[in-house]
Amino acid sequence: MHHASARHKAAARTGIWFVGARGSVASTATVGLAAIADGQAPPTGCVTAREPFASAGLPAFADLVVGGHDISSVTMTKRAECLVETGMIGPRLFAATHDALERADAEVRPGYDPHTDGPRTESQQAVAERLAADITSFQERHDLARVVVIDLSSTEPPVVPSPEHDDVDALLAALADPARAVLPASSVSAYAAILAGAAYAAFTPSAGMGLPALTRLAGERGIPVAGQDGKTGQTWLRTVLAPAFAARGLKVLSWAGTNLLGGGDGATLADPDAVRSKLASKNRGLTALTGSDTTPLHIDNVPDLGDTKVAWDHVHVEGFLGSRLTLQTTWSAHDSMLAAPLVLDLARLLALAHAAGISGPVPELGFFFKDPWGSDVHDAADQARAVEEWVRGTAAQVGR
Amino acid sequence: MHHASARHKAAARTGIWFVGARGSVASTATVGLAAIADGQAPPTGCVTAREPFASAGLPAFADLVVGGHDISSVTMTKRAECLVETGMIGPRLFAATHDALERADAEVRPGYDPHTDGPRTESQQAVAERLAADITSFQERHDLARVVVIDLSSTEPPVVPSPEHDDVDALLAALADPARAVLPASSVSAYAAILAGAAYAAFTPSAGMGLPALTRLAGERGIPVAGQDGKTGQTWLRTVLAPAFAARGLKVLSWAGTNLLGGGDGATLADPDAVRSKLASKNRGLTALTGSDTTPLHIDNVPDLGDTKVAWDHVHVEGFLGSRLTLQTTWSAHDSMLAAPLVLDLARLLALAHAAGISGPVPELGFFFKDPWGSDVHDAADQARAVEEWVRGTAAQVGR
Amino acid sequence: MHHASARHKAAARTGIWFVGARGSVASTATVGLAAIADGQAPPTGCVTAREPFASAGLPAFADLVVGGHDISSVTMTKRAECLVETGMIGPRLFAATHDALERADAEVRPGYDPHTDGPRTESQQAVAERLAADITSFQERHDLARVVVIDLSSTEPPVVPSPEHDDVDALLAALADPARAVLPASSVSAYAAILAGAAYAAFTPSAGMGLPALTRLAGERGIPVAGQDGKTGQTWLRTVLAPAFAARGLKVLSWAGTNLLGGGDGATLADPDAVRSKLASKNRGLTALTGSDTTPLHIDNVPDLGDTKVAWDHVHVEGFLGSRLTLQTTWSAHDSMLAAPLVLDLARLLALAHAAGISGPVPELGFFFKDPWGSDVHDAADQARAVEEWVRGTAAQVGR
Amino acid sequence: MHHASARHKAAARTGIWFVGARGSVASTATVGLAAIADGQAPPTGCVTAREPFASAGLPAFADLVVGGHDISSVTMTKRAECLVETGMIGPRLFAATHDALERADAEVRPGYDPHTDGPRTESQQAVAERLAADITSFQERHDLARVVVIDLSSTEPPVVPSPEHDDVDALLAALADPARAVLPASSVSAYAAILAGAAYAAFTPSAGMGLPALTRLAGERGIPVAGQDGKTGQTWLRTVLAPAFAARGLKVLSWAGTNLLGGGDGATLADPDAVRSKLASKNRGLTALTGSDTTPLHIDNVPDLGDTKVAWDHVHVEGFLGSRLTLQTTWSAHDSMLAAPLVLDLARLLALAHAAGISGPVPELGFFFKDPWGSDVHDAADQARAVEEWVRGTAAQVGR
Ligand SMILES: NC(=O)c1ccc[n+]([C@@H]2O[C@H](COP(=O)([O-])OP(=O)(O)OC[C@H]3O[C@@H](n4cnc5c(N)ncnc54)[C@H](O)[C@@H]3O)[C@@H](O)[C@H]2O)c1
Ligand SMILES: NC(=O)c1ccc[n+]([C@@H]2O[C@H](COP(=O)([O-])OP(=O)(O)OC[C@H]3O[C@@H](n4cnc5c(N)ncnc54)[C@H](O)[C@@H]3O)[C@@H](O)[C@H]2O)c1
Ligand SMILES: NC(=O)c1ccc[n+]([C@@H]2O[C@H](COP(=O)([O-])OP(=O)(O)OC[C@H]3O[C@@H](n4cnc5c(N)ncnc54)[C@H](O)[C@@H]3O)[C@@H](O)[C@H]2O)c1
Ligand SMILES: NC(=O)c1ccc[n+]([C@@H]2O[C@H](COP(=O)([O-])OP(=O)(O)OC[C@H]3O[C@@H](n4cnc5c(N)ncnc54)[C@H](O)[C@@H]3O)[C@@H](O)[C@H]2O)c1
Ligand code: NA
Ligand code: NA
Repeated sequence: MHHASARHKAAARTGIWFVGARGSVASTATVGLAAIADGQAPPTGCVTAREPFASAGLPAFADLVVGGHDISSVTMTKRAECLVETGMIGPRLFAATHDALERADAEVRPGYDPHTDGPRTESQQAVAERLAADITSFQERHDLARVVVIDLSSTEPPVVPSPEHDDVDALLAALADPARAVLPASSVSAYAAILAGAAYAAFTPSAGMGLPALTRLAGERGIPVAGQDGKTGQTWLRTVLAPAFAARGLKVLSWAGTNLLGGGDGATLADPDAVRSKLASKNRGLTALTGSDTTPLHIDNVPDLGDTKVAWDHVHVEGFLGSRLTLQTTWSAHDSMLAAPLVLDLARLLALAHAAGISGPVPELGFFFKDPWGSDVHDAADQARAVEEWVRGTAAQVGR
Repeated sequence: MHHASARHKAAARTGIWFVGARGSVASTATVGLAAIADGQAPPTGCVTAREPFASAGLPAFADLVVGGHDISSVTMTKRAECLVETGMIGPRLFAATHDALERADAEVRPGYDPHTDGPRTESQQAVAERLAADITSFQERHDLARVVVIDLSSTEPPVVPSPEHDDVDALLAALADPARAVLPASSVSAYAAILAGAAYAAFTPSAGMGLPALTRLAGERGIPVAGQDGKTGQTWLRTVLAPAFAARGLKVLSWAGTNLLGGGDGATLADPDAVRSKLASKNRGLTALTGSDTTPLHIDNVPDLGDTKVAWDHVHVEGFLGSRLTLQTTWSAHDSMLAAPLVLDLARLLALAHAAGISGPVPELGFFFKDPWGSDVHDAADQARAVEEWVRGTAAQVGR
Repeated sequence: MHHASARHKAAARTGIWFVGARGSVASTATVGLAAIADGQAPPTGCVTAREPFASAGLPAFADLVVGGHDISSVTMTKRAECLVETGMIGPRLFAATHDALERADAEVRPGYDPHTDGPRTESQQAVAERLAADITSFQERHDLARVVVIDLSSTEPPVVPSPEHDDVDALLAALADPARAVLPASSVSAYAAILAGAAYAAFTPSAGMGLPALTRLAGERGIPVAGQDGKTGQTWLRTVLAPAFAARGLKVLSWAGTNLLGGGDGATLADPDAVRSKLASKNRGLTALTGSDTTPLHIDNVPDLGDTKVAWDHVHVEGFLGSRLTLQTTWSAHDSMLAAPLVLDLARLLALAHAAGISGPVPELGFFFKDPWGSDVHDAADQARAVEEWVRGTAAQVGR
Repeated sequence: MHHASARHKAAARTGIWFVGARGSVASTATVGLAAIADGQAPPTGCVTAREPFASAGLPAFADLVVGGHDISSVTMTKRAECLVETGMIGPRLFAATHDALERADAEVRPGYDPHTDGPRTESQQAVAERLAADITSFQERHDLARVVVIDLSSTEPPVVPSPEHDDVDALLAALADPARAVLPASSVSAYAAILAGAAYAAFTPSAGMGLPALTRLAGERGIPVAGQDGKTGQTWLRTVLAPAFAARGLKVLSWAGTNLLGGGDGATLADPDAVRSKLASKNRGLTALTGSDTTPLHIDNVPDLGDTKVAWDHVHVEGFLGSRLTLQTTWSAHDSMLAAPLVLDLARLLALAHAAGISGPVPELGFFFKDPWGSDVHDAADQARAVEEWVRGTAAQVGR
């Protein structure tokens, strides 16, 4: 490929559009992006910083520009300041990235809040068009080759099923009806990404682009999408360990877990409705990998832990001649510090997918997700190999 | 391959010759083999019980016959009885395998004890010939297609280096000299395996076949060998986890560990000399995988734990923007129950290697070892893939 | 006291009447009592085996005789046999105590099962009289100075409040009405103890003697009672640790816990109703001792763990200058092995209370309970001191 | 006592003289003292902030003045700044206490460094007099009722025994000899405290005042002394838990532990000589409390942990009928944040002892130490009670 326009090169100025831009993960990603782009911090924790990703012609960190939607009026800068208070972000780093936070926050536009927006002067179609216009205008203003929308908004309760979720035409009709609110907010944002022609990643367990009608539409309109629910800590660890037991011929009898966390996510998940989405998504991989369904799992809101997530797992395993072994793991990490680099990875990788003209779910990005779209593979080592092969192949196809 | 004699088929009656046959691992493996062969226990914990191994034409469990060397007069039956007392082996299982233990113990011959044998009416050459004759006679008596020698004897202190260890001719000369004891006991046993034309696996960290002159000789004499030091518990876990951190771009700062164990191995390792072999071998993979050399590691003899090994690891990791995360693991298992099925796996796989005419170190068997011969790969997932590919390829070559 | 009849001496033949006699704890206590009485096992885990209890003139282990009520037809012997299968009780111990189990099981009479008994040919008064007659007949048959009833039956859901529970006369009237079932089963058994003049201990969190009208009646009729809910594992540990933090001026911010258990109790507590009684009772002491109400707690039924209970606690503490420290504890024990010796202790100590003519709740026995009757003290060290002082004082008063 | 001069009142301006004033613990104590005295931080972690200490007439925090000896030229301010970098001290707190640190550091005088001082123009007597003069001058300059010397200097290797250590006269003679260095540095400092008439506490396991001749001399010269080796974290936890097991009649079989730490103390304890003092002192209480001598213990220098100490303990316990239970604890804390408030407590309590005219070891202060002088009590709950009774009694005697 001797000459590629920016449209066909991944390594071009790229927008990241966060839904939930003023949340903990998005603010941390923005701080980190600024620090890495400036050479003030190494890209530790970013998968795409190592080979074969590093030489795959992905957009440089310095070529990523941040904007987004949120329904909160607390700015990214203020949010980052709170994270300084809790000790998660160092004061120097905050000072050094203050201006970048201000610049990014200036690109934040009001999101769609189903609790306050309407009832119902506006159709959801109109809402989505407004959201899409925000994205398009951002893209033009910054002269971006493409935009990747990443959903980082608060986890929603499980969606109430509706026949329109499975049928593109019925969905489009319902969206046009100002009297109806057929989609949860996350899915309105996903639809807006389609309208804006933006690539899309669902880092949350909310419905988002995961509704069949939207997934199909994304495929038809040439949008690469990836999801769902970032696999960052305890679940990642489980998908590392469970296949390893299987490779040894050892039989998992039960896998019990507890998560303690505070922060914004802790407060959201204190809501028994929201936590149901999360628990379902966390356990899917484990059951697939072990065959055991004795997998009790709890998420407790422990405000004094702030953004630290502590997770304990107890694995009970049957070995040779009916003998038993146990493995306990205790994981302690700043949750947003785990998520943020993966979010930057997804932006870079979806930029490549977009440049390559891939549309619909990208199963090879399953590495990043608890509940991978388009794939049944949960084994973290298999997923790592798959995404490496994918980036090699796709980069070769696109040229650099 | 239209016609294969037993000599060229793996799936034939095969001998397992344990050096250290009356130890905990060997006795457990013998109990388990009898129970599996009889259909009284499933082969849980055996890697070769699952695909692609299961259909690779390995010798059936019922086609494996046990014998060995030991320097202890406590029989395998008695040893197994002690393991019943500690709760590791169930009383019913013991009763059901009692006769098989007696039969196997009847095949145990006196090993070479450097503390009591000599000084020096006999050369080590003569000793090795006696040991080899025990193996050959076992093979003939039971009409076995081949024998696999597996070193399960007590861990020796690190070997005192000697120029003969690197030079085949010098070694053979020294062996013939009754005044010298150029080899540690484990290496005399390894040499005996060569003389007997038996395949060989080193499940211990002792010198064994690992001395360069012996490895070379094994290659020349057409013996497949695999080693070294069974990777069964904490070390295995580390080689599962460390590559997973690397795949995430996370940087291990330190990896500290403690092992508590009782039993025969606990008592042996209470000797600071013997423990040095073990600690070196345990840490090699970790340093290779993480780049960190802050890897303090202890092995404590805690007699009241019996054969249970409890291992605690504390992993300190740097993530995004200099943030820190910790993972702690606590592993609790009957050590011999982890080792025994892998020992049976090795016997079956080396039978295949022998049938295929492979000689010298088999790097693809690195999955089973802390310190893999012929390979620098420590990543457990990579090793699992490698041994699966190897068995497919080798089975296809040999025919079934 | 120059001459004391058996009635006034604690050290006399004493009956233990288990409600739930065929359960795991009762069967284990019976095995243990037989083994200790015979000198086959030391009384490890019995508080009363050490000073000052040992020389307080309590009934000797050999002077304790077991009987009880249950609604299951699975005998104590059979139950103990199951505990042998799970590895909790050794096969030799079982063989050595087999006859004692048979003898004890011959003293088991049908309990009151509210699900099958009635509706309602019989009043609860009549039921209680039948149960009391079982106890009295047991006492006479074995020529016992006294009987101690210990409730070890399955945990009931929280009781539905009723005005009769607070008023002795109203309660007695309601009990006489065959159309009503004013008391839960555990309280019918407690009432039966009163009718039989037996001392009483509530090892479960069920209502039992804890209803105000029954507690009062016990006091009026001269019955010493102690409760409630045996403090054996995780909760005991918490009441050891929490006061120690307070003594150091350290402030507990949160105390999160998870319990995994199988066995009969695990299955019972899988019922969300039953578990509510237990969780309430487990958290009471903790909140009293720490002032923190961030104490999320879970009990999961993990059948593959059998009678082993594994409990993980995560304690988050504020120290000097706002610094934070964490303590994690992992506890793993056979639950019934913790409970059984304390049950024997309670029988011996309530025998002393009875001999001393103490009636109503004995607050000094709070050491044994999660929710101590007649006391607000939860600090395990304070409780240990209190019961030691009590036994010294009471023994001195009774004479030996 | 109707009228007490400042000399006989504890609640008077009091000096704290740190040996090792520029170390981590001393700098943290100084930051904290300033913050508490100013009302910027609550005295969390100080035992003396709660009753009965709070109303015992101890010197107020605002009446404590800091000075000390050190052999390092890195100031307290600089040291505190490093602790800010590691995240242990917050940047605001540092800013708010900056001036107090500067003031305290201005009171730091060169200590006695046996490696560079001499050889031997000066006798150790002369050195001690110089050190004592520093203390006296500090006391006068600040008009202090008394000074409490607290040894917080680096742990020394175990002392080489010498007959003079047991004999006051011989010791005094040897001290006067410029050719000899009969005392380790910590004991020279202790002797200086005696010369200055200052109360003294040994927070380290070094010899200090613990040599018999010095202890005797302190008694004769009317100096109250307390030691030895601050009981702050893992050891404290063990002396909470071990007596609790004993109270339950449970038998500890083994208690294995590992400590990971970085910081100055981590580096010091990487020296196998220094660590021997520490390990001995850590294990003494445990063996006394449990009777078990299977207590393997390790201290590893893990620089990346900074001042955080992580300690894992594995306790194996025998219960009823030979059953086994395990308790594991993982403790994670900033070591200096645990030590600093206890150091302030000791200053306040020794001021009271001094006011009360107590001389020699104060056994009731054993609560604070791993290796309590004048006492065999290690049980933390018993020690807490003892020190509370002592403060009540002594305060009553002194008047307030
Ligand atoms: N390790 C991790 O942090 C991790 C892992 C997997 C998934 N997640 C998911 O990522 C999401 C973000 O986590 P967080 O910790 O940043 O949460 P957070 O609560 O700090 O941030 C969520 C943000 O979303 C905004 N928001 C809510 N509704 C919105 C709407 N309708 N439109 C636009 N913005 C909206 C909120 O105002 C808030 O600013 C959560 O759903 C979480 O479950 C996080
Ligand atoms: N998970 C595991 O159990 C595991 C893992 C890796 C390595 N290993 C190694 O496997 C070996 C066996 O472990 P074990 O627990 O059975 O130990 P063990 O002490 O129970 O058995 C060792 C046996 O070797 C015999 N022996 C000693 N010297 C001999 C000699 N010169 N010739 C013949 N026999 C000799 C002893 O008499 C004893 O019967 C050890 O070296 C151990 O380090 C075990
Ligand atoms: N460490 C401990 O084991 C521990 C600690 C605190 C409290 N407890 C409590 O002790 C009780 C016994 O525990 P377990 O493990 O032995 O349980 P289990 O389920 O093994 O035994 C309970 C027994 O009670 C019997 N029962 C049920 N309803 C009855 C009735 N109405 N009358 C008479 N018998 C009846 C059952 O048939 C069964 O035999 C439970 O309530 C448990 O919560 C146990
Ligand atoms: N939780 C705890 O932190 C804890 C608990 C028990 C005991 N300790 C003991 O407290 C002591 C201080 O711990 P730290 O973490 O502050 O150590 P540190 O290494 O940070 O400080 C020690 C200080 O002592 C100084 N010093 C060394 N030799 C000296 C001498 N001869 N005269 C005067 N000063 C000298 C050093 O220069 C340094 O400033 C150590 O001995 C440690 O073992 C600490
Ligand atoms: Na190698
Ligand atoms: Na002492």
